[in-house]
Amino acid sequence: MKVETFFTPDSAKDDALRGRTVAVIDILRATTTMVTAMANGCREILPQASMDQAVQLKGRLGRSGVLLGGERGGKKIPGFDLGNSPLEYTPEVVKGKSIIFTTTNGTRALVRTKVGVSGCVVSLLNVTAAANLMARAGRNAAVLCAGREGRFSQEDSVCAGLLIQRMAQALAPEPLNLDDASRAAVLLAEKHGAELVNMLKNTDHGWYLTAIGFTADLEYCGQLDKYQVVPEYKDGRVA
Amino acid sequence: MKVETFFTPDSAKDDALRGRTVAVIDILRATTTMVTAMANGCREILPQASMDQAVQLKGRLGRSGVLLGGERGGKKIPGFDLGNSPLEYTPEVVKGKSIIFTTTNGTRALVRTKVGVSGCVVSLLNVTAAANLMARAGRNAAVLCAGREGRFSQEDSVCAGLLIQRMAQALAPEPLNLDDASRAAVLLAEKHGAELVNMLKNTDHGWYLTAIGFTADLEYCGQLDKYQVVPEYKDGRVA
Repeated sequence: MKVETFFTPDSAKDDALRGRTVAVIDILRATTTMVTAMANGCREILPQASMDQAVQLKGRLGRSGVLLGGERGGKKIPGFDLGNSPLEYTPEVVKGKSIIFTTTNGTRALVRTKVGVSGCVVSLLNVTAAANLMARAGRNAAVLCAGREGRFSQEDSVCAGLLIQRMAQALAPEPLNLDDASRAAVLLAEKHGAELVNMLKNTDHGWYLTAIGFTADLEYCGQLDKYQVVPEYKDGRVA
Repeated sequence: MKVETFFTPDSAKDDALRGRTVAVIDILRATTTMVTAMANGCREILPQASMDQAVQLKGRLGRSGVLLGGERGGKKIPGFDLGNSPLEYTPEVVKGKSIIFTTTNGTRALVRTKVGVSGCVVSLLNVTAAANLMARAGRNAAVLCAGREGRFSQEDSVCAGLLIQRMAQALAPEPLNLDDASRAAVLLAEKHGAELVNMLKNTDHGWYLTAIGFTADLEYCGQLDKYQVVPEYKDGRVA
């Protein structure tokens, strides 16, 4: 099985995703929040690339049971029901609900996977479950890191490496065929995998989240294998 | 001093380069070849983004003393004087000459630095000299890896890490302020810095170059600090 990793959404051309099992990773915080919402019983998540699209969709759906969630600059969007902190997405709030969701990096990476390409929503919270699912799928894999504003992010790359390590374990003795970026991701996971919360606190995005008051989110996002759920993004919907 | 690293040209927005000392790295093989040509006495290199632009410029310059060099798919372009193997750029061939140069990744990264932004041409062959120059410049630095077809490449990232390590040594005890990508590059340099030729042979691009017959180039490109020259790209010209 071949695994290719993309540290930024733009570096993944359409051809590199087609026919692959795709993992989408944005652990600070979009994919962590989506995994949490699904684990806590939300009905579906409808990722939107822009605020405009999110608000228009809310207008069209117009019914109760639909929440608007997301961030810009890490902060809750005015008028939205929820921000992008996974700690807000409790069972009491999200059970049975549809959530229209827009974030700076993660939902764009997800929407980047386009119609016809489905993606697994991966965070540290479900990385082993996701690795087992992707190993069982048997197809070549693409690991798509959201990064940060079009640039490499350490935390997503570490999660990519942990995912690949676990895929290798699940498939052993069959060896994985890794590209340059996948091997770099594994090296980052070897370096930081044993101290994930500390790693998150010492990244460009982690420092920013600390500065705007989300230290508790970093503790939450750094938890390994809290959940078994692996939400799937397909045809514009995470479920 | 702040150092930001970009693993692909597209991930560097114009703002991230303006006012910085920029290093451009494409060690397999464009920047290695350019450093070699300048060390061997060539007058100047005129990087062009496309073959068309290269051939048109040759037509306009039209004089003797101008060579056409470059590759597509790793191989010499039909009708060109030189390919992209640094071993071709001997003193006998290049001394006093202008070289119009176009390659798949490296010259595009260089041209990406745009008018008004100058760049140091960096390879393993001149990495310590480049680090000392960039440290002395005193401005914040941007390290721009050419990567491969818009994607991360291990060899450029290792070279970026070696450059940053040496900048840190030159500036000590003043600490460098590194972004996520710069810290990942340093980790890669720590892992692979002591076995550079072997590292080059075990990369996506290295395997390809071996397959098309350029093993000797990998041995050459893996040499550390063979030269002291640090060519500068400015206003469309390397000199």
